Amino acid sequence: MNFLITTKDRNARRGLLATSRGTINTPAFMPVGTLGTVKAMSPDEMKEIGAEIILGNTYHLYLRPGTNVIEQLGGLHSFMNWDLPMLTDSGGFQVFSLSPLRKIREDGVEFRSHIDGSLHFIGPAEAMKIQGILGSDVAMVFDECIPYPADHEYAARSIDLTTSWARTCKGNQNPGQALFAIIQGGMYKDLRRKSAEDLLDIGFDGYAVGGVSVGEPKGEMHEIIDFSAPLLPEDKPRYLMGIGDFGDMLKAVEAGFDMFDCIMPTRNARNGTLFTSLGRISIKREEFKCDDGPLDPHCGCYTCRNYSRGYLRHLFLSREILSMRLNTYHNLYFYLDFFRKMRASIETGTFQSFKREWENIPF
Amino acid sequence: MNFLITTKDRNARRGLLATSRGTINTPAFMPVGTLGTVKAMSPDEMKEIGAEIILGNTYHLYLRPGTNVIEQLGGLHSFMNWDLPMLTDSGGFQVFSLSPLRKIREDGVEFRSHIDGSLHFIGPAEAMKIQGILGSDVAMVFDECIPYPADHEYAARSIDLTTSWARTCKGNQNPGQALFAIIQGGMYKDLRRKSAEDLLDIGFDGYAVGGVSVGEPKGEMHEIIDFSAPLLPEDKPRYLMGIGDFGDMLKAVEAGFDMFDCIMPTRNARNGTLFTSLGRISIKREEFKCDDGPLDPHCGCYTCRNYSRGYLRHLFLSREILSMRLNTYHNLYFYLDFFRKMRASIETGTFQSFKREWENIPF
Repeated sequence: MNFLITTKDRNARRGLLATSRGTINTPAFMPVGTLGTVKAMSPDEMKEIGAEIILGNTYHLYLRPGTNVIEQLGGLHSFMNWDLPMLTDSGGFQVFSLSPLRKIREDGVEFRSHIDGSLHFIGPAEAMKIQGILGSDVAMVFDECIPYPADHEYAARSIDLTTSWARTCKGNQNPGQALFAIIQGGMYKDLRRKSAEDLLDIGFDGYAVGGVSVGEPKGEMHEIIDFSAPLLPEDKPRYLMGIGDFGDMLKAVEAGFDMFDCIMPTRNARNGTLFTSLGRISIKREEFKCDDGPLDPHCGCYTCRNYSRGYLRHLFLSREILSMRLNTYHNLYFYLDFFRKMRASIETGTFQSFKREWENIPF
Repeated sequence: MNFLITTKDRNARRGLLATSRGTINTPAFMPVGTLGTVKAMSPDEMKEIGAEIILGNTYHLYLRPGTNVIEQLGGLHSFMNWDLPMLTDSGGFQVFSLSPLRKIREDGVEFRSHIDGSLHFIGPAEAMKIQGILGSDVAMVFDECIPYPADHEYAARSIDLTTSWARTCKGNQNPGQALFAIIQGGMYKDLRRKSAEDLLDIGFDGYAVGGVSVGEPKGEMHEIIDFSAPLLPEDKPRYLMGIGDFGDMLKAVEAGFDMFDCIMPTRNARNGTLFTSLGRISIKREEFKCDDGPLDPHCGCYTCRNYSRGYLRHLFLSREILSMRLNTYHNLYFYLDFFRKMRASIETGTFQSFKREWENIPF
C-alpha cells in the first residue's frame, strides 16, 4: 500500500491511497457493508456512484455466514462480487457494543453472540486470522473501545491492553494486507498522546482514531479530533472511525484526517431521512404528496434524475423495497459527491470557504 | 393497438402486439407492479431482463397513493418512470378478493379498503375513469369475479352483470387506450360460451379469461382453458388472467392464449423460492451453505453470472434487501427467458417437444 499527499490546504490533505485492487482518492468516505453487502445496493451501483472502497464488519461476518463459509467461497471480495479495495474492522467495536456478555482477558475477549447467545472468543491473533481469510486490503488492529465516560485509571489500563494487542496484530500481519492501528484513550489527552506514541513505536501502515462519538459532547469530540491529528505521522493515512456527521467530517478534514466510515447515509435512507443540498428531508412528510420535483434539485444521481418526491413518498409509505434502494442510492451518492467536492476544494485551496458553505446547510 | 400473428404451431400462436409505447412479443408474460413498482426491481432492470409490458393494479393504486396524486404527477408511466407498455386491471378482482366487506349494486360495488376500512365505490364507469388517469396502454373491463364453487344460477346472473358492466366500460373507453373484456362463467361451459358471445357482440380490442385458479382442481381449470380459447376471435389477443404455473401456461399457449400475468416469480423470490432449469429451489437449504456454483448453471442472468448459491443463501438468511433484489431479478429473468424460448419453439414448429421438455422439470 502506498500513500501520497498531492495537495495540502493548511492541514487539510488531498491524497491518493494506492492498493493492489485500486487507488482511493482521499479524503475518502467508506460506505459500510456490514454483512457482505452495502444494504439495498448492488456492487455495480456502488461503482456507479463512485465508491472506491467499502468497509466490511469482521464481527458480523464471523458470526454470519461464518469465516469457514467465506473461506470456502473464495474470500469476501469474491463472495460479495466486489473487486475494489475493502477495509475490515477488527470486530473490537462490535464485541464491546453488541455482545450482551463479555469477559476481557489478556489475550482477547470472550463474548456471547447477539444473535443466538453462543459463546465465542476473539483476540488480536484471531482478529488477524479472520481478516486474513476475509482478504480485505486494509485490516484494523483488535482494540478495546471503552465506554463514555470512563475514569482515567481504567482508560490508562485499556490503552496498554490495546497497544499490547496491536503488537500481537502486527506480529500476525497477513501478507499483502495493510494494517492500521487504532489510537484510544477516551477523552484524556495525555492518554491519547501515549496511545499514539506507543503505537507509532510499533509502526503501522496507517493510524485510526477510535473511541469517539461514543456519547461524549460534540465539543469534547472536536477537541480530541484536533488534538489527535498532529500526533499521527504526516506520511500515513489517518482514519477517524465511525464519524459521518457533515460538521464533524469537515472539522476532521480540517485537522488532517483522510478516511471516514459511517452507517448514517444508509440507515437514514432506509428510515426515509434524506440528505440534500437544502438540508435534511423526511420523505414521508405530507407536503411532498403531490410534489413533482426531484428530491434534490442540485443532485445528479439516478434517483434525482428519474423520480419525484411524490413518488419517493409513496414508495416509502408503501414500504416498497424500491424505496430503500432509491433512498440509499441518493444518500450514498450525496456523501460521495460531498467528498468529491471537498477534495476539489483542497486542490484549489478553497477548503475554508467550502467548509463554511456546508456548515450552513441544516443537516 | 395492432395485433399480428406471425406464426402458428397447431393452435399455439406467435404474435406481435403493437402499441404506441412499444411492441410486445407474444406469447408474453407481464410482471406485476402492484403499487407503481415491480417489487424489488428498478425500471432499468426490468428493461435489462427484457420485460416489454408490465401490469399495474387499479385497486391498489386507487387506494395508495390515490388517483389524484398520480394524476398530478403525470400519470402512472411518468410516476414510476416506466415508458414501455403497461396494462392495468380494473380493480374488480381485488375488490372481490381483498375487501373485507362489499355490496354489489347494478352500477358497481361498494366496498371497504383492506388498509383502513374506509368506504369506497367502484363501478365500470369509475374503473374506466381511474384507468384513464393512470394512462395505461391496455385497460381491462370491470368484472365480477365469482368464488369457487358457485352455483349455476348465481354464475348465470353474474355473467349478465359483467356483460352489462363491460358495455358501460366500452361506452367510456379512453382515447388511445385499448380495452379488453373478461370472459367469466365459473366452471360452467354453457355460461363461458354465453359470456364470450355476449362480449364479442359488444366488440373489444382483446379478450381475457378470468375466474380461473380460484381454488378449482387443475383438471377443471385445464378444461376451461381448452374450452374457452376457441370461443375467442382468432385475430385478437387472448389473455389468461393470473396464471403463472409453468404447466398451466404451456397448456394455455397450446390452446391459443397469448398473454399472462402472475405474482409467482416475484413473491416466491422474496420468500427464497427460485425457479431454475433443474426445478424449484429453496435457497435457504443447508446444502447450499458452501455451494460456490451459480443458482442455475444454465441461466445467463446477472444473479447467476455473479453470485454463488452460498452467497444467496447467506443474504436470504440475513434478510438483506439484496437477497430480494437478486432473487427477484433471477425469477423474472427465468420467466421471461421461458417465454423467449417458447416463442422460438412456435416459430420453428417445435412447441410440442418444448412443452414436453418443460413439463419434465420439477417445479
